[in-house]
Formats: sequence, C-alpha cells, structure tokens
Amino acid sequence: MELKAMSKSELEGFYKQACEEYDGYKAKGLALNMARGKPSAEQLDLTEGMLTAVSTNAECYAEDGTDCRNYGIGDGLPEAKKLFAPMLGVSEDEIMVLGNSSLTIMYDNIAKFMVFGTGNGAEPWSIQARDKKLKWLCPVPGYDRHFLITEKFGFEMVNIPTDENGPDMDMIEKLVAEDDSIKGIWCVPMYANPTGVTYSDEVVKRLAAMKTAAKDFRIFWDNAYCIHHLNDTPDKLLNILDEAKKAGNEERVLMFASTSKVTYPGAGVAVMGAAKANIDYIRSLMTVQSIGPDKINQLRHVKFFKDFEGVTEHMKKHAALVAPRFAAVLDELDREIAPLGIAKWTKPNGGYFISFNAMSGCAKRICQLCKEAGVVLTGAGATFPYGKDPEDSNIRIAPTYPPIDELKTAARIFALATKIACAEKLLGK
Amino acid sequence: MELKAMSKSELEGFYKQACEEYDGYKAKGLALNMARGKPSAEQLDLTEGMLTAVSTNAECYAEDGTDCRNYGIGDGLPEAKKLFAPMLGVSEDEIMVLGNSSLTIMYDNIAKFMVFGTGNGAEPWSIQARDKKLKWLCPVPGYDRHFLITEKFGFEMVNIPTDENGPDMDMIEKLVAEDDSIKGIWCVPMYANPTGVTYSDEVVKRLAAMKTAAKDFRIFWDNAYCIHHLNDTPDKLLNILDEAKKAGNEERVLMFASTSKVTYPGAGVAVMGAAKANIDYIRSLMTVQSIGPDKINQLRHVKFFKDFEGVTEHMKKHAALVAPRFAAVLDELDREIAPLGIAKWTKPNGGYFISFNAMSGCAKRICQLCKEAGVVLTGAGATFPYGKDPEDSNIRIAPTYPPIDELKTAARIFALATKIACAEKLLGK
Repeated sequence: MELKAMSKSELEGFYKQACEEYDGYKAKGLALNMARGKPSAEQLDLTEGMLTAVSTNAECYAEDGTDCRNYGIGDGLPEAKKLFAPMLGVSEDEIMVLGNSSLTIMYDNIAKFMVFGTGNGAEPWSIQARDKKLKWLCPVPGYDRHFLITEKFGFEMVNIPTDENGPDMDMIEKLVAEDDSIKGIWCVPMYANPTGVTYSDEVVKRLAAMKTAAKDFRIFWDNAYCIHHLNDTPDKLLNILDEAKKAGNEERVLMFASTSKVTYPGAGVAVMGAAKANIDYIRSLMTVQSIGPDKINQLRHVKFFKDFEGVTEHMKKHAALVAPRFAAVLDELDREIAPLGIAKWTKPNGGYFISFNAMSGCAKRICQLCKEAGVVLTGAGATFPYGKDPEDSNIRIAPTYPPIDELKTAARIFALATKIACAEKLLGK
Repeated sequence: MELKAMSKSELEGFYKQACEEYDGYKAKGLALNMARGKPSAEQLDLTEGMLTAVSTNAECYAEDGTDCRNYGIGDGLPEAKKLFAPMLGVSEDEIMVLGNSSLTIMYDNIAKFMVFGTGNGAEPWSIQARDKKLKWLCPVPGYDRHFLITEKFGFEMVNIPTDENGPDMDMIEKLVAEDDSIKGIWCVPMYANPTGVTYSDEVVKRLAAMKTAAKDFRIFWDNAYCIHHLNDTPDKLLNILDEAKKAGNEERVLMFASTSKVTYPGAGVAVMGAAKANIDYIRSLMTVQSIGPDKINQLRHVKFFKDFEGVTEHMKKHAALVAPRFAAVLDELDREIAPLGIAKWTKPNGGYFISFNAMSGCAKRICQLCKEAGVVLTGAGATFPYGKDPEDSNIRIAPTYPPIDELKTAARIFALATKIACAEKLLGK
C-alpha cells in the first residue's frame, strides 16, 4: 500500500513499527559503509598476479628495449597505449598513459587551462576570469569530486537536469550558444555517477555538434565506468570523439579513464584521450612538469593483461563480485520501498552506484537516521554542486565495498530510515 | 704548458694534433651520452628486491591495517613518513610522501600558488602578475628543469652568481629586501646541480633569516642529492627549516627530495617537507586533486629499506658504482686539460654532475664538436635561465649513465673538443 494512501492511524502504525525495527538495529552499534565507490577487498584480490608481473631486472624492459626503471617516455609506454587505446576508442597517437589518477589529470588539465589557456592562442581562463565570472555545466545528480574541482577553481556551476538519456540537451544547447563564459561541462557518459545512466546516441551527437559561443569550450568526458558492466546486457555508448570529428569540433573533447577500479585505486594507471592536436598541446605543457610517469607500473599492467581482451575478461570477475551486491540492495528496495510509492531509484547495467530519489525533503533525514544507526552514506546533497540538492531528495548508494552480509544489513537499515523519514514528512513531524 | 703561453706555431701544432686525434674518434661513428643525470643500469639493478617487496594480497596492508590497494591516505602512509622524515630532517607531521616525482610536485606547488596563493589570505601570484612582472631568483649555473618551470609560469628569472659557498647572499639579500615582485628562489643546496657545491652554514642561515619585501616569498629547497654521497668525506648541510624557525620565517621554506636516484626514476616516491602550517595548507588544496598517492609503491619502499639506515646503506652501493665514473672523467680532465690552463671544473663529494667552465666563448663549440663525434652533452647554456650563459663557458657533465668504458672514451673526446675549441679561440679561427 502506498504511504500517501494510508489513513493517519495506519501511517502512525507504520511509523511505529519501522521505528521499533530501526531501534533494534541501532542498539547493535553497527559500523557499516555505503558511502564511497570503493572496490571490495575481494575485488582487489583479483589483481594479485599484477604485483609480481614485473619481478626481475630483466623484466623491466619495454618491447622497444626502453629501460622502464629509468627516466623518460613522458606520455606512456607504446605497449600501454596499445593496451588502453581500445578502452577509449582512440588511436595510439590520441592517448596518453599516465600515473594515478584520472581525477588528478582532470584537475591538472583545468589548472593548465587556467594558467596557459586551451591552446591555439586561446586566452588563459584565469585572465578571462578578470572580467567575468566563468561558468561550468554540471549535469545533476553528478560526481561530487568533479564539482569540488570546478568550485575550487572559482567557476560558477550551473545545474543541468538529467534523465534516462543523459543531460537536458535543449537547455545545454541554449546556454552554450549564448554565453561565452561557459567553459566546459562535466560528463560521466556511461553508467554515470550516480545515476547509472548511459548517454543516448542523440545526446552524444548533440554534445559533439552543438554550437558554443566560447571557442575554448571543453567537454570533460570522464568515462570512468566504460568497461564496468554488471551483466550480459551492457549499455552501449557512442564514441564522442568520432562524432566531434564529423562535426568539425574535435578539439572540444577530452576523454578520461583509469584502472583505479580495474586493478588498484591509487596504484592504477590513468589515460587521457583526445584529438592529436590536443594531445600534442598538453604534452608540450607536460614537458616542464614531468620527466615521465611510472613506467614499471604501466609494464605491470601490460604484462598482467596482455591485451584489451584480457582487461575485459578481468572485468567479468569484478562483475561476478559486484552484481550480487547491487542485487542485494535492489532486492531490499524492491521488496520494502517499491510498494510504498515514496522513492524511485535506478537499476544500472554497470558502474558503482544506485541513485536513490526519495520524496522531496527527506534525503538529509534518511542520511541522518542511517548515520545514527551506524550506516555511513555519502552526505545528502553531495551529488549536487555546492552540496545543495534543491529537492533534498537524492542519495547515492555505493554497494560495492562492504562484505555482502554487512551490505544486506546496511540496505535493511537504509530502507527503514527511508520509511521513517517519509512517514515523518507525511505526518508533519 | 699553458695554451696561452704557447707561440702561434706551437699552438698551431697543438691544434693540428688534437684535430687528428679527434678525427680518429669521429670516424668511429660513436653514440655516447653524458647529457642527463640518469642512473646507470647497474645502479638500477641494485633495487631488484623492491620489485617483489609486495608480492601477495596479504602483504598489501599497512601497519595500521590500511589496505594499500584501495583509495585514501592522501599525503602518504605513516610508515613511509617515518622512513623518509630523516632524509629531510623534519618531523612526521612536517612531511608528505607522494608519488613520482619531486619535479612534478615543485611544478604543482607553483601552479597552486599561481591560482590560489601561498596561503593565509595571500593574493594568488597570477592576480599579482596583472600589475607587475613577477620575478624568481635563479642561482647559476643551475638545473635547467627548474628554470623551465618558472619560465613557463611567466616569471622573470634573475641570475644569481654562485661560488664554493653557494649563491651570492649579498646580492640576494639586497634584491629581496627591496623588490616585492620577487616571489621565490630555486636552491639545490647540497651537491648542487651542476656545481656539486653544498651551501655553507652562513648561506643557509642568511637565506632563512633575510628580510623579504614579499611576504609570500618562498624558497624551493630541492634537496635532490641529500643522501647521494660519493665518498667517506661527505659534505654537511645545515637544516634550513630549523634555521627558518629560529628566525620566525618557517613559512618560507618548502623542501623536496625523492627516491628517483635511490630506487627508480619514475617509479620512486617524492617527499615534501615544510612547517606544519604549510603542509596543512597544501594538503587542503590537494584534497580536490587526488584521492591518494600510490600506496603500494610506498609500501614497497618501506619493506625494501625497513628504516632510514637501510636507505643510507643502499646509497653506499650506488656510490661504489658512481664514484669510479666521476674519477674516470676527472682523471682525464686532470691529465689532459689541467696543464693547459683553459678550464676549471668541480670535484664534488656527491651528486650527479661535474660543472665544467671553459674559456669564455668556447662552451657551445665544445658541445658542437662533441656532438659531431657522437658524444651528447647537455646543451651549452642549459644551466642558465632562458638557456643563455652570458659567458658561453659552462658545461654540465653527467658521468653516471654510460658504462665506464664508454665514459672513458666520451671523456677523451670531450677533452679533445675542449682543446680544439680553446685553440681555435686563441688562434682567432
């Protein structure tokens, strides 16, 4: 029965029962975590073979004889480029293979564009910011760490609503056509953080082809989950660089990915893909910054995976561990919350998150109740710029990290917290 | 006999003989390299044990139970801080242990100060640069990659002469007291690149205590060679952070070092030391940039070295390989060039370089002659800002990388090139 259809006394009874069950869990003094998109220890165990993939002095040499222990090779080993180019769908002269992590590389690119501009004589963003506040488009809900970067660099962030096809393209096209202070957009185009949505072909094509008032507008295409499928019916994403080339806008797109959730967070490698002119420009800026990335670690990845098929096979082992965790949370929500009509959530085919939208005005209260019962969630609002969810509705659930028994308990507590918060709202408590 | 004391016919004979010998080497089509301060393959072989120091899933955990394979620990593992704090002479809350490399961290700190300022409300350098050209002090000869960073960020670089005690402190004190557009200074205070000089206690104290017109003046103390001794009579360097604290200027000093030439260039770890307030400020900026460095690689270092004594013992093995290479070059210069009175050079107790000062106006020609005979040197002028050596005299010799037989040949060709270039100069050719 939907909560809104209940009489007041029915609702009071529902509320009392939920509170009693909740208090039972609270008394246990649990410490559970569904906050961050971290791989579980079992997932990390899958990569053990990489630790010893380069074990001797003789194994430290690249195919072309380069001693990977020494200086040089600023933008990545050729065999690492070959290995990861298919992940981004680019050629080997359109990719850089760098160190940990893609987040750091995105930050660093914005820092470079601030101080040096986007290339081809474009004025540095920090100079442009003298005369006007620069803006950045942020599809919401989105990734909190993206928003923190653009907030730190002083951009005014503009919320862009999203649906099952991706961000609202009518709104984006209108904004970027009129306002040359808009310098970029954050996109997690596949199994988006947190919605799990993969951008439709139409959205990708429109992003690639749209007219922008700013010539130095850049799409930060954080394809973090491009190979993180959960089942045998994965989503498909159009290659935006191909589309941008067709539209004559190839300079617009910067693609990022990493092995942080393939091998190890922290000890993975990050990749950046872009049109060759962009790669050349960014490489020219990097020569004063670095003598080269950790090539031994790149070689470990190459030797462990051998080829891109090796990477995708490895991801199936991750899926076997991650999919049951998603199912555990979704089962709980389907059974306990769906009949009540108080929330909606996504059932993604990949990625690391379930995006949960409760009745307006309930998200903070749900997180608070969870916290008091020992379940840590990403703070309500974190999926929006400045931490402000105008509806106080969205919560990002990260089911991957806890052991599955703990996760089931955490999901149970989350469902109870949702029941309580929504009943309180309806009861005017 | 000194070249200047020769009669013209003696000098012509000397020149002819040198040219004949040089042509003999040139005909061999050699490919030798004394250009960059790279460890030799034998040196890199010393670290083989580190490759397998973390070999199993169970070995991936830090002392406090942290899973080093996963996200987190933004500023370094506690045991890595403990290991490397003595290298900089700081406490464990005055150090960050990061990834590869110290050059990247220095670049990144300047980038941060450009966009965000040095902390405590100081105006960002890029904002200050609207109204006046900012300046940076560069002791010369110095490290080309330092100069490239400050050139790229638009600083006007000011040459500071150096002698056997370090940079000219009278000049520095006068400049920084008067000019608030001077924002920093590059220092390689021990076994300097390229001079091999270690700053005297007086120089360190004066740098720490001097009055600066700019409150946001920063000393970039690149202590790259702090443990890279060549013999049993190492230089000693005063701890500048201690001195700065005594003078009430502790915010002034940022210290850097790395294991690039201890374990592996590229696959080493870099450290930054500073007063706690500086560390806290920089950490606060880093939270939006990184979720954490490569902790598995930090753990490899910890397990391989165990403690700082393990590091210093390891450095003795490096010295055993590097010292004979320095000796090979110095022997050649002592025997072939010293009697001629046409050049001076340093005989450092550590580091990676011999700084060679030829007769004025001869450095470019020496490098050209070497190149034509297959010996690559760092380009003449590279040890000065903008690549401009006003005397065209200084050449940086890097003896560490080539196998010793090749090095002896390269040194012989270098000596011949010096003879030819100086004789040409004196003969007015």
